[in-house]
Formats: sequence, structure tokens, C-alpha cells
Amino acid sequence: MTLELKGKPVADQIREEVLREVEAWKARGIVPKLCTLIVEGDPASLYYAEAKGRAAEKLGIEYELHKFPATVSEGLLLDVIGRLNRDPEVHGIMLELPLPAHLHAPKIAEAILPQKDIDGLHPDNLLAAIKETTGLYPATPKACIALLTQYGHTVKGKHVVMVGRGATVGLPLMHLLLNAGATVTVCTSKTPDLSVHLKQADIAFVAVGRAGLIQPEMVHEGLILIDAGINETADGKIVGDVSADCLASSAGLSPTPGGVGTVTTAMLFRNLMDAMDLQIPVKEAR
Amino acid sequence: MTLELKGKPVADQIREEVLREVEAWKARGIVPKLCTLIVEGDPASLYYAEAKGRAAEKLGIEYELHKFPATVSEGLLLDVIGRLNRDPEVHGIMLELPLPAHLHAPKIAEAILPQKDIDGLHPDNLLAAIKETTGLYPATPKACIALLTQYGHTVKGKHVVMVGRGATVGLPLMHLLLNAGATVTVCTSKTPDLSVHLKQADIAFVAVGRAGLIQPEMVHEGLILIDAGINETADGKIVGDVSADCLASSAGLSPTPGGVGTVTTAMLFRNLMDAMDLQIPVKEAR
Repeated sequence: MTLELKGKPVADQIREEVLREVEAWKARGIVPKLCTLIVEGDPASLYYAEAKGRAAEKLGIEYELHKFPATVSEGLLLDVIGRLNRDPEVHGIMLELPLPAHLHAPKIAEAILPQKDIDGLHPDNLLAAIKETTGLYPATPKACIALLTQYGHTVKGKHVVMVGRGATVGLPLMHLLLNAGATVTVCTSKTPDLSVHLKQADIAFVAVGRAGLIQPEMVHEGLILIDAGINETADGKIVGDVSADCLASSAGLSPTPGGVGTVTTAMLFRNLMDAMDLQIPVKEAR
Repeated sequence: MTLELKGKPVADQIREEVLREVEAWKARGIVPKLCTLIVEGDPASLYYAEAKGRAAEKLGIEYELHKFPATVSEGLLLDVIGRLNRDPEVHGIMLELPLPAHLHAPKIAEAILPQKDIDGLHPDNLLAAIKETTGLYPATPKACIALLTQYGHTVKGKHVVMVGRGATVGLPLMHLLLNAGATVTVCTSKTPDLSVHLKQADIAFVAVGRAGLIQPEMVHEGLILIDAGINETADGKIVGDVSADCLASSAGLSPTPGGVGTVTTAMLFRNLMDAMDLQIPVKEAR
């Protein structure tokens, strides 16, 4: 029987856990607070940033959306980030991407204090994920693994194919998989034939950003597919990198939308809780 | 016909190139200088450090061996590194490992200025290797790839197996391979059956540190094996991770000793030249 790995039950469980922790923080007199920086110009980013605000509100998390005009200077953004870094009442800082071309996104993202970087994209956090040390691991890779494991599967001892090695998903995810005991084959745009590798894997994670990259004839009935791709088709539909037709030809597939993305949104709040544990000494919290 | 990928011709070529660059630096009034820090206690390390000194002398590179007693404090080592970091006449700094247990090796290694870290083990250099940005990439992984390519092979578009994911070899090497266009399968101690992966690969790099891990029945006649393992047997012989018997059952194998290690020693001087390019502005050098 083919399994559709829907994100909602996994996200619900993460949010329940977060809600309990938020209440515990409040009982200690501390209100969790998340700040998002957005530079105007990309309507989708604004939509996501506002959606996060509604999700935060439901969880009792304070949320501050800092909007900047498209002409904002790098210096001003860095000043604001510096102030939020130093503010002990702010526990998480997110920078909505993409930024206008005159702003150097990596430089601005790296200005965020690693302990408040709930996206887990700061180099210190990437290194922590790679070396399995303390830090905030990138949210989407964590969501990919949570989605799989909450449906009762494990990567330990399994042969896992990772399609894509981008900085936000594939690269950190390959290391989370290795650290969890998987044998990992990383396929890239230079791989001559993806299906050779998919045909013999137990599990595949796909994060490339190309609609319909994976087609039914490339998979097999024992394969579980986790699709982290988000693409907009010409007619405005949101689809993943894996064709929905693969569901019938595989052992399982996460839907898009409603799969990895749904879990990632919840995982950001999970990271906010972890960020607070890193920032606030146990003594102070008690 | 099976190919024995000996290190010497590759190391010779690197040294010739380095020698030309050393002479060019001297013509500009700058003498390349390398400093090695060693804490007494490990006879093998001292042997290697002194061998590097002789190799440096042959290349016209100034070499300073800083020996410390086994009881040296972390503070003193950090002070010396700080002084060498600031000294514009010192272009490369190496820390011989292992260190005695009372010293925190990663902390001391990270104190070395990334631009003088010719071992390429500083986190900044690891990240540079991963992200393919400017930096000093780790010497042994670079040596592994140089050994292969100097014998006319490429990893681009090939299926490469990486056995081991240690911080000094496997981890950075998997990224150098991905950046060079390989499809990479990373096998670890949790991989149920290495031979399943080796049997279908084009090239395999092995860096685990276990004598005889790879045996002839695990490989195939089309496979090229690069062995980065260095192990001492009970009777004091130096052997790799790949059994020498694999030579007859594969398309090629690098010998141990006389393979990767030989190239690595030369690669450290190649990194010293790259370090100088990073430290000395072009204007000043002309």
C-alpha cells in the first residue's frame, strides 16, 4: 500500500510540543519573541511572513514584522539586526529571502547571531549540523527527516539518495542523514542518469527546484520519496520536484503542497524553542 | 592492465611548480616561511615534522620547528600561535597532532589564522572547500584528487564511492568531489555491505584507518581505488585501508606507503604558496 506522507499530522505534533514549551516559558515570566525582517518587493515573501505571524499568534509567541522599502541600505539592515541581536527579549530573527539585488544576502544573513538564527542558515549552524555539535540546524532538512520518521521510518543503515546539494536543503541534509547512520548517494545536475541511483535506493530526498524532475519510470515500488521542492507552474499551481504520479509507483511520497513545507513552518517554531534554550541559562529560567 | 597510482611522480611535479614559485618570491625579496608547532610525546609526529623540515630546505623554504614539552599550557601555545599569526614573515603554520590529553586540539588548531592554515583544517577553510569559495583547502583531500587526475582520470560525471567521513579526509573530500561534478556515495561504519556500493562505482576513495578493510572480492576490475588510510600493523609495517591484493582485481590502486601520503607532503607546500598569494597583495609582491 502506498503511503502519502502528509505534513499536517507531523506539524500538528511539533506545534503541540512547542505550545507546551511556550506555556512553560510564560510561567517563568518569559514571552518567546520572533522577529522577521522583510524587504518589500516579493509578494510571496510577504505572504509567508504574514502567515508565520498568524501561526506565531496561535502559539502565543510574540511576533514582530520589520518591513523595509526596496531601497533600504545594507547599513540600516545591519543596524537593525545588531539591535535585535542585543535585545534579550528577542529570541529568534528571520530574514525573508529573496532580497533586492543591491543587498548582499549572505552578508546580511551572517550578521544574525547564530543563537537567534532559527532558519539555521548561519555558517556556524551549518558547521554544527555537519559536525553534530550544539547549534540550530537548518529547518527544512530537519523537517524532511521529521516527516519520514514520524511515519515510522528510519534512515539508519538505509541507502538514501539525496537529489540536489543546495545550501539551504541538500547540503545540510546530506550531513544530517550521514549523522543519522544512512549511506548517502548525492546526485547533482552532473549525474548522468538519476534513475540508476533511485532504482536501488530505500529512500530519496529531492530538493532541486525543478517541477516534474522525478517521473514514475525512474522510481520503484520499494522507494519512499520526500519532496522538498517548491515550484510554481505557468498556470500558478504549486508543485514539487517529484511528479504526483510517482505516488502509485513507489512505497510512499510526500505531497506538495502539504508535505515538507507544512512541517518546515512548524519546525521554525521548534527551532525558536531550541534557540531560547541556548540563550537563556537554566538558572535564570527557573 | 592494472594501474599502480604511485605518489612520487605527482609529488615531484607539485614540488617543481612550488620551487619555481619560491624562486619568484625570492626574486621579489620575500622568503617563504613555514612554522611547525609540536608538543613532545609522539615520536612519529616528531619524525614527520623533521621530514617536512628537510623537504622545506630542498625547496628553499625557511622552516622553524617549535618544540614544546608535554606539560606545556594551552595559554602558552595560544600565545605563540598569536605571535606567528601577526608575524608578516611567517606564511604558514602547522600544528602536529596528536596533542597530549590536557590540550584541546580543535581550540588550538582554530587559533591559527585561516590564511596561514596550510593544513586546511580551520572551520573557515572547511566551509570554503564545501562552498567552493576562496581559502586553503585541506591537503590530504586535495592530494587524493591530484593523484587521480595526474594519472589522466577525472571524477566529473563519474560515480564515486567515498568510504569514511572523518573531519580531515572524508568530509572535505566528499565536497571536493561533488564540486568537481561527481555523483558521490558516502559509506560509513553503518553501511551494511560496502561491496554493494564498491561493485558499481567507477572510483573509490578510502579513508577510514582500518588495515585491510577493502578486500579483493569487494571490488571489480573497472574500479580505481585511492587509498588514504595509514595504519601500522602489529609487526610495524605501514599499510593502507585497501589490501594490496586489490591491485590485481581492480583497474587501479594507489600504494601505501608511496601513494596519497607522498602527495600530501608536497601538497602542504602547494598550500603554502596559495597561502602567500592570499596574504601578500599583488602590488606588494611586484
